[in-house]
This record gives sequence, structure tokens and C-alpha cells, in this order.
Amino acid sequence: MESQALTARVPTVSLFSEIERDLPRAEQYIEEALASQDPLLVEISTHLLKAGGKRLRPALVMLAAKVHRYDLDKILPAATAVELIHMATLVHDDVVDHSRLRRGRPTVNAKWSDGYSVLVGDYLFARAFQLLADTGDNRLVRVMADVVYQMSTGEIQQAATAFQVDQTVDDYYDRIAKKTALFLSESCRLGGLVSGAPEPRLEALTQYGYGLGMGFQIVDDILDFTATAPTLGKPIGSDLRAGILTLPVLHALTTSPRAATLREIVESRAVGDAEAQEASAIVRENGSLQYAYQTAHNFIQKAKDHLAQLPPGPAVTNLAVVADFVVDRAF
Amino acid sequence: MESQALTARVPTVSLFSEIERDLPRAEQYIEEALASQDPLLVEISTHLLKAGGKRLRPALVMLAAKVHRYDLDKILPAATAVELIHMATLVHDDVVDHSRLRRGRPTVNAKWSDGYSVLVGDYLFARAFQLLADTGDNRLVRVMADVVYQMSTGEIQQAATAFQVDQTVDDYYDRIAKKTALFLSESCRLGGLVSGAPEPRLEALTQYGYGLGMGFQIVDDILDFTATAPTLGKPIGSDLRAGILTLPVLHALTTSPRAATLREIVESRAVGDAEAQEASAIVRENGSLQYAYQTAHNFIQKAKDHLAQLPPGPAVTNLAVVADFVVDRAF
Repeated sequence: MESQALTARVPTVSLFSEIERDLPRAEQYIEEALASQDPLLVEISTHLLKAGGKRLRPALVMLAAKVHRYDLDKILPAATAVELIHMATLVHDDVVDHSRLRRGRPTVNAKWSDGYSVLVGDYLFARAFQLLADTGDNRLVRVMADVVYQMSTGEIQQAATAFQVDQTVDDYYDRIAKKTALFLSESCRLGGLVSGAPEPRLEALTQYGYGLGMGFQIVDDILDFTATAPTLGKPIGSDLRAGILTLPVLHALTTSPRAATLREIVESRAVGDAEAQEASAIVRENGSLQYAYQTAHNFIQKAKDHLAQLPPGPAVTNLAVVADFVVDRAF
Repeated sequence: MESQALTARVPTVSLFSEIERDLPRAEQYIEEALASQDPLLVEISTHLLKAGGKRLRPALVMLAAKVHRYDLDKILPAATAVELIHMATLVHDDVVDHSRLRRGRPTVNAKWSDGYSVLVGDYLFARAFQLLADTGDNRLVRVMADVVYQMSTGEIQQAATAFQVDQTVDDYYDRIAKKTALFLSESCRLGGLVSGAPEPRLEALTQYGYGLGMGFQIVDDILDFTATAPTLGKPIGSDLRAGILTLPVLHALTTSPRAATLREIVESRAVGDAEAQEASAIVRENGSLQYAYQTAHNFIQKAKDHLAQLPPGPAVTNLAVVADFVVDRAF
């Protein structure tokens, strides 16, 4: 569902400059969290980790913490837990979507099986909640349990509404809020919580993360039309093929002169290369990608507005850079 | 993997007599925990719940709490969380094992899809950890995260060793300890924790639950040979067909004069009706079911021995009845 685009083009080290020197420690902490005496378990559970990825969520935990008080011993378990939860959801999503490719490598289900994906996903969730429980701060457990709860309901909504052309843009916002934006907002909250930030700061960080997450997912949905497969690390047009109607498509369905054709393509429930190309043309001609981009931009702007409620400094500046990156990567 | 046998034959109400009057409240609490505005989500997430089941784990939480101090407000969230986690693992296991029938009804994957099973399992896990986090007692979160962690590693071991005739009885014990016994032992611990029991009581309860769990799983593995499909609520011989080598088979593989034939059947990796029947005959002729039953009985006896370290009373007596039930249900 979520692309890992541009990992190569925008080096992580410059994107997260304020915490750059601690990223290798976070990476090491994640790998150590997956240590086991069972070599197969290590191989499967670190398969996705070793494929790369932006590490956006742990970076948000770290940057959000840095806004208030940067105590790496408290930050690393939380940052690791969010990445493990992210990995668990990706491994499970690839079963749901029958995906064969992720971050340019075979998915766990492609390389091993759906069964291993289910079990390793559960293993990653459990490891994450062990780490969160060990912090002794119940709020972290509750926040991340909420994230997994909302994500699964969002994904179930997505599955239940596949190929349904009657869904509204509000349905779409509700869905991506649950499946993506909440995770980013709560990663920011987690960073605030481990740093002991007071409620107004937690709230500003969370609101920033929400706007960031909405913008992030909309751009992701645009990239499914515009990126190239090697950049994206997975096939193009996979959302539409899977019946997932994203903002560009929903916009075109209500505003394009060729909406009827687009509707037919979706309702055929058999979107091959030719159909995907035609749908893409309809969406592009209609300016629906620009519309979606503008919407993403608005969310990102709101995210940055919330940063103004935080004490200025390098961490907040870096969070603004992350927000800009999230929209700019579309082009 | 685990049968829900004999639900009909031994009414739950008499098995858990000491907490009998509170079981409907627990049932209601579980159902309320799965309330949602999304009717599809309610339907899928309660599908397994409504198929029945013994509610062994919540009952253990309740009985273990009753040994020390019975405060239903503290018990119900924990009892509900363990049942939700149990349901999540069953729903996920049915994807792993491609099971079509559970508790005599179609599995979630059979009725909906593997994808829905994955997502609803995650949803159930998340809901359980929300409830545990809300108790404010981090130890409960840690204990249950450990259970899910160990169960997933046990299931991965089981998948990795399918059809492998060289595994030892110790491998089997390690596997069932992780996938079953730990869950029962930690359900007892949870009951002790919510009741504020001191460490020696927690330890005795946990040791009781461990023996109970080992005996429970061994009897379950025997039932896969001896029960009838309507009683079991799923097809007979499903373990062997899936390549899962249980104690009766491992015993026969090392002691039966027809071990070579049994070995061939397993290694063929294609166990149909005829092969399952022949394997079953070899296991029976060799007395391997009796051997396994005796082993289960020994674990149950150890479980009951640990009850002697607890203050005598109706709750402890009921725990002993549960232990006896676990072996007696085999015959």
C-alpha cells in the first residue's frame, strides 16, 4: 500500500539531519531486537528490514523527542517498536494484497509463504509490544495498540470497499487517516511522550504527524500513477488493479467527462495493463493528479502550521524539511 | 491445531462451577469489546466467538484470581484480553493451516478470505492490548506480549519442521510449550496478577498452568487420532496431513516395528485418506496413543501437585477438576 519510493534518490541521512548520527544506533537496536537462536526466524524477520526503507516512523519518534528532551535510552525502544509494527503491517498487507514485490525485493509471502508471513507479522507485533511494555509507560502501549487497531479497521474498510465506485472522498480520507496518518501522528506523539513533553506540545506534534501522514498517503497514491516500477520497488497501478480507489480516481469519477468509462473499468473488477493505462489517461487528462497533489500540499501546509506552536530549533526545522520532502518526492 | 472437542459433552457451566455465575458476564464483556460501527467488522470478529468454545483461558484467569482475591472489575478486562488473543491466534492459524472448519463452522478464511483473516486477527490482537494497557498494569501487557511472541516462534518452528521425521520428542515438547502450554500458564499468572497474589502463589499458578497446557496439547494431539469429526468440529488426522508430527507419531517412529512404513508415509508429503488410516493403525498397534496418554497424565499430575502449594479452597478444587477434565476428555 505504501511505497518506499526515492530511498535511493533522497539519502535518509540528509533528510533526517538532526538525528543523523544516531540512525545507525537505531538500526542496530532494531536488528538486536530481532535476535533469536532460530536462524530461519532471523532470516525471515529481518528480510524486509534488510531491503531498506526510509525509517520514517523511527525518525519521527527521534525528531519529536528532540523537540523537547533527547534521551536516546528512552527513545530507542520506542523508535524500534514503531518500526517493528510498521514491518508487521507491511508483511501482513502483502498477504492481503497478494503482493510479490516490496522495496524491490520479493515479499516474505513470495519468498516463503502466506503462512510464514502471518506468523512473522505476529512475531514482529509481539516483539514491539514487549519493548513498549518494558518502558514501564503504559501510555506507549495504549497509543500503539490504538494504531494497530485503527490500521486493521482501515484495511478492512479498504478490502470491503474494493472496486466500489460509490465511495466518497470522505470515505477515502477516513480510510487513509486510519491506515496511515494515525501511525505517523502517533509516532510523533510517542516521541513526545518518551521525552516527557507537556500536553500542548504532544498535541502539536500529533497534529503535525496527522497532516504529514495524510499528505504522505495521498502522494503515495499519486506515485502509483506517476512513478516508475524500479523507483517504486513494486508494480505501477497496483492500487487500481487491486480495486483500491484513491483520491485521483475518486476525483476523476465525479469530475471527468470520461467518468463513465472509468467507472466501467473499475466495475469490471478485471484491471489489466490496457485498462490500467486507460484509467491512468483519464485521471491525468482530468487534472486529477494535480488536484490530489494540491490536496496533499494543503495537508502538509497544515502540518507545518502546527510546528509553529513548538519552540523553534533544529528539530522543528528538520520536521518541516520532512514535511516538504513528503510532497516534493511526487515530482 | 487445537480442538474444541467435547464442548457439547461436558457443559462449561459444570466444568468451571466456581465461577459459573460470572461466565455470562465475561461472555458479554468479550462481545462488548468487539462492538464497532462497522457491521462487517462485528460480523467477522464475532464469527468465531459465536461458534462456541470452552473459554478455557478466561476461566483460568478467573479461577486463578479467585484463589487469592476475586475482584471482577479487574478480572474481566484480563479474561477478555486472553480470549481475544486466543481468537486471533486461531483465526491466523487457520490461514497458516488452510483450515476450512473450526468448531464445526466454516473458518473466517473459508467464509471470507485469507486477507480478512489476517486483518481481523490483527484487530483482535490490538483490541486485547488496548484492554491490557487500560488496566494500568504493564506486567499484564508484558506477559501477554511474551505469549504471542512465543506462540508465533512455536508455530514457525512447527511450519519449518513439517514432515521432518528426524525431530525429537524434546523438539515436540519445546514446540507445544511455546504454542500452547505458555498461554495456559500465563493465563493463570494473569489471574494471579490481577488479584494481587504474591510471587510464590503466582509461581504455583503458573506451574499448574504449564502442566495443564502440556497435558492439554498432548491430549489434543491424541484426539486427532481418536475423535470423530463431528465431535472434533474439524477433519480427523489433520495434523499428519499437514505434516505436523505429534507425540504419538514421534513415539511410533522410534519404537514401532513398522516405523519404516510410517516414515515413508510422512516423507511422501502427500498424506491422503488411505495413508492417514495406515499411519493411524501403526500408531495404535504400537501402543503410542497409550504412551502419549500416560505422558499427558504425568503432566496433569505435576500440574495438580503445584496446586498443593496454594491455600486449599473451592477455587483450587475447581482448578484440579479442570486438570482432570483435560485428560479425561480423551476417552
